[in-house]
Formats: sequence, C-alpha cells, structure tokens
Amino acid sequence: MSLEPRPHQAMREGAEFDTIRALMARWGDLAVDIGDDAAVLAPSPHGTRVVSVDACVEDVHFRRAWISAREVGVRAAVAALSDLAAMGARAEYVLIAFVIPDAWREELSEVADGMGAVIREAGARIVGGNLSQGAVFSITTTVVGCAQRAVSRSGARAGDLVVVTGLLGGPGAAIQAWDAGESPTAWSRGRFAAPAPRWAEGEALALAGASAMIDISDGLAGDARHVAAASGVRLDLDASRVPAGPGIAAAVAMQSGEEYELLACIPEEAYKKLAMDWAAISIGPLTVVGVVRDGADASPTSTASPVAGGFDHFASVEIPR
Amino acid sequence: MSLEPRPHQAMREGAEFDTIRALMARWGDLAVDIGDDAAVLAPSPHGTRVVSVDACVEDVHFRRAWISAREVGVRAAVAALSDLAAMGARAEYVLIAFVIPDAWREELSEVADGMGAVIREAGARIVGGNLSQGAVFSITTTVVGCAQRAVSRSGARAGDLVVVTGLLGGPGAAIQAWDAGESPTAWSRGRFAAPAPRWAEGEALALAGASAMIDISDGLAGDARHVAAASGVRLDLDASRVPAGPGIAAAVAMQSGEEYELLACIPEEAYKKLAMDWAAISIGPLTVVGVVRDGADASPTSTASPVAGGFDHFASVEIPR
Repeated sequence: MSLEPRPHQAMREGAEFDTIRALMARWGDLAVDIGDDAAVLAPSPHGTRVVSVDACVEDVHFRRAWISAREVGVRAAVAALSDLAAMGARAEYVLIAFVIPDAWREELSEVADGMGAVIREAGARIVGGNLSQGAVFSITTTVVGCAQRAVSRSGARAGDLVVVTGLLGGPGAAIQAWDAGESPTAWSRGRFAAPAPRWAEGEALALAGASAMIDISDGLAGDARHVAAASGVRLDLDASRVPAGPGIAAAVAMQSGEEYELLACIPEEAYKKLAMDWAAISIGPLTVVGVVRDGADASPTSTASPVAGGFDHFASVEIPR
Repeated sequence: MSLEPRPHQAMREGAEFDTIRALMARWGDLAVDIGDDAAVLAPSPHGTRVVSVDACVEDVHFRRAWISAREVGVRAAVAALSDLAAMGARAEYVLIAFVIPDAWREELSEVADGMGAVIREAGARIVGGNLSQGAVFSITTTVVGCAQRAVSRSGARAGDLVVVTGLLGGPGAAIQAWDAGESPTAWSRGRFAAPAPRWAEGEALALAGASAMIDISDGLAGDARHVAAASGVRLDLDASRVPAGPGIAAAVAMQSGEEYELLACIPEEAYKKLAMDWAAISIGPLTVVGVVRDGADASPTSTASPVAGGFDHFASVEIPR
C-alpha cells in the first residue's frame, strides 16, 4: 500500500510522531504518560479511572460518500470507546464535541442515533459535550471509564504470546476498493462502517493477565511496533498466522488501520486458560500471531519507520503454542 | 449588536438550543445532566470528579489575523478550564485533541506553549490527547477536575444576589473593533486574546456557598437566562451596575461573550462574608449586578429568546446590597 497519506489516516505515522515529540519538548514534565490509548487517573475504590479522547474528521477519517450518517456516528463511538477497551476499561461517561457545518445540520440526528446505540450497548451515559459551527464536520469524543486492572502498552515481556481479536483487513480492503472506484465486499464495508466493539474482550484479556494491550488503529504491524517501543521488547509476528477476513490478503490484514480489534501480549499459561473460555466472551476468534522477544534491537527509530519497512522488520518466526 | 452569527460565536443561540433539543430527543435517558458547564461524575473521597469538553475552531472562535499562535493556545486552555471554574472545581487532568492543517504545523509549538503555560498555572497535567490532520485548525480540550463543593446552574433561589467577577465587555469591544477594521484598545484585545483564569474565584464562590454558577461565555444577559431557566427563577440584572471595562458601554458589557468571567448567585449573608476576603482571592472586583426573583414568569421560551430581547426581559430594578 502507498505510504502517501490516505483519507482514513489521521496523520502519517512519521508526521504524527514528529508532532508528538515537538509537543512533548514544549510541555516537558507538564505532559505525563501520554503514550497510551487512554490516560490512567487516580485509582478509586471501584477500580482505576481511565480517560481518553478521539477525533473523527470528515474527509480525514471517512468520506461522506462511503457511509451513512448513522454509520458515521457508530464508527466515531466505537473508535473512542475502543481506546478504553484497549486499557481493559469499561466506559462509564461520554462527552461529545460536534463541529457542524450547515450541510450536516439535518443529518445530525442520524449521527446521534448511531453514537447513542453504541454508547447504550456499552452501558455508558452521555454527560456532556460541546456544539460549534464550523466548515468541516468533526466529532471529538471523550470517554471516561473504569478498569479493574488497567493494562498499558508498556508491560510486554519476552516469552509472552502476541494475540489479536477478530478478523483483520476489512477496513483496509474497503478503502482500497473505494479508492479504486469499486464497491467493497459487504463484510469489508461493514468492518469499516460499523466496527465490532471489543470492550468485553478487552476486559477479559486484562483480567486474564495481559501484560500489554493496544487497539489496532494504525494497522497490526504499526501497533505492534508501538507496543514494542513502549515495552522495550521486540514483537515477532508471523504473517501466515494473521487472521484475515474473507478474501483478504495477509499483507492487507497486517497493515489495515482503524480495525478497532485488540492486540495483546499475554503469558502463555494465562492465554491457555483464557482460550478455553473465549467462546463465552466473544463471537470472534482470539488468535496467536506472534511472540515477544528480548528487545535489545528494538530501537525507537525502527519503531517509527514507515509501515512497509516495519513489515519486513517483523520477520516470520516459529511461534510456540 | 447584530443578531447575525459573529465569528466569535460558537453557534447562534437559537440554533444551539434547537440542536441540543434534537440531540436530547434522540438520546433520551442515555444523556443525563448535560446542561451544566461540566459533568459531575461519581463523588470520590477527595471531592467530586468533574469533567468538561470545549472546542476552539479557527474562523469560528477566533481569526488568525487577530491573535498570535501562542494566544490561540492560551485562549483555548482558559476557555476549557473556565468550565471547571464555573463548577467550583480545580483542574487536575487535561486531554488535548488537535486538528492540524499543514499551514499550522510550524506554529503548533507556539500554540502548545500557550496552552502549557495556562495548564501549568492551573496546577493540572496533560495526560492525553489526539492528533489529526484536517482542513480547519481546531483544539478540543477535555478537562477533568475535582470540586470540594460542585455548583451547578440550577440552585439559584429567590433572594440570592447575582454577582460577577472582573470587568466585562473586553472581548465584545475587541471584536466590534476588528469587525469595523479598527484596532481594539490594548485592554479589550488582552481580554479576548488572554482571558484571566478564574479558578481561584470559582472555588472561593463555591466554598462560600454560591447556589448557582456559570461562566460568561454567551454574554452576561444570555448566561443569566441559562441560570434562570435551569433554576426555575428569574434573574433581574441592573445594567447600571454591570462592571464594564475602560471605555466600554454598558450594553456591550452586558452582551459580550467569551468573557470567561463568572456569574454566581449567592445568599446575601454569604456574599457579605466573601466580599471581605475578596481582595485576597482575586485582583479583579466582585460586583453585585442583580437579584434572584421568584420565577413563575421565567419560561424556557423567554430564556431561549435572542440576546437583544433578553436584554429587555431583565428589567433594571433596585438591588439590595
């Protein structure tokens, strides 16, 4: 796939990291622990409070011709809540900031319905937000939740298995089709328009003892690098084991972004126990796709390299089961 | 002043309320208590957790020609933190979601410096955020804080005094000048570009026993109506008592938006005690501008009326001191 910015990409990976580094340099110790999917606030008697924010911008994260207004809402809500799932947290409160051009005014109710359905299913409540007019439609969603055991990106240890939920590649295949002027398959389209929420899976992985977790928003290969960098280890992925959706090539499944499936690192014994219960937790599979290795050679530089290079970096290896 | 949308207005008042009503109709009991400056989450041993989100969009909330990149950051941070001040809460955590066009990439460090300076002064920390490319620059800021005593908009009771912090009218006068192709006074410009944060004042008003509080983002007259509607009372304001900035007409001070000063209702005895200590709390004044009356005639309809009509609605009356 091209390394040029694609419409579904929030920001080219290099540019995003450059910007984050520049911001961190300005903020110094004012900005703490901002590398995870969500921020862990002070622990409470009921668990750890976790908060995250996610933006969905027209013509950046989606195009109006691709999906319905309701699907725009579903997608924005799942994307935001996914950041909590990736910490093992359940959502409790949601705040929604809309920027609304006149052309979207009529459709806002449909967007709201889509968001509402997802938030209701998650068991959370909408407690606030912000409305602004503006030239470009966007939804910025703040989610506040609680984790019995919060899992960051930084705890992966050599020997852990690397697992992923669900089947990958749908969003990438859908965008490839749209970009080529074709229609995506119903399955791929559905994975882009209404990704499956994985909060039950995230909580189960956390409670089972996952050492690190992330949601797959930058693609499996890219997000594996995020975990590797944060944990100071190497994640060796086996492309032949990546669970691709129907008719989807392994390379697409490896790099497809905005999946909102979860990647977790987990000790082998914990994985074996969890795997026995998995059918009661999720209708999707839980698949071992790699292993965590000692990370002397996992430098931040290789982690920030382009996706195509990263794919080579994670050499195919034999994985213990 | 014109009732047409102005560049600094997030949304015309009528349109904003129509949109909120439409959203509430879709969300039903999923959306709770979203009428306040910030949402009150579950109480903790250290106080009540409060969270809010605020957006700052180029060419809606400011124009690039008016203020520097650093001031854009200062203004966005003060606006967001002001919602916590209006609840009597202190900020603890901040999450910042940027949408960044290429033209803003170079200036982002200056924006970050401005936000950082305000957040540091507030004693809060930046714990997360989101970066997205996009055609229009915006900052959506989520603030999480804690209140020893959280004050909503809905507690005003007949007999309470209506007080405001600081001197009003600066942002309105500055925008009037810019719109007329003139230069605003340094004072007015400063009030728009770098509003004074009022968190110490908000906390002091809350602890002194304020019954209702709001930050003046829609103009004194408009925000008084918000409090009146939420509390089921009438707020009678005396235009001759409104503390206007240097050279600023009372009508401008009454209607100038995005002040980020605080309007509070407070029992007279509590006000008298607080007034004696005020000089130690704030360098600005605390001014009695009105009184709360029984609100049989304060219908939601009159509350949602245009600003100019609202100005008539709040007849000038004698105010007890």
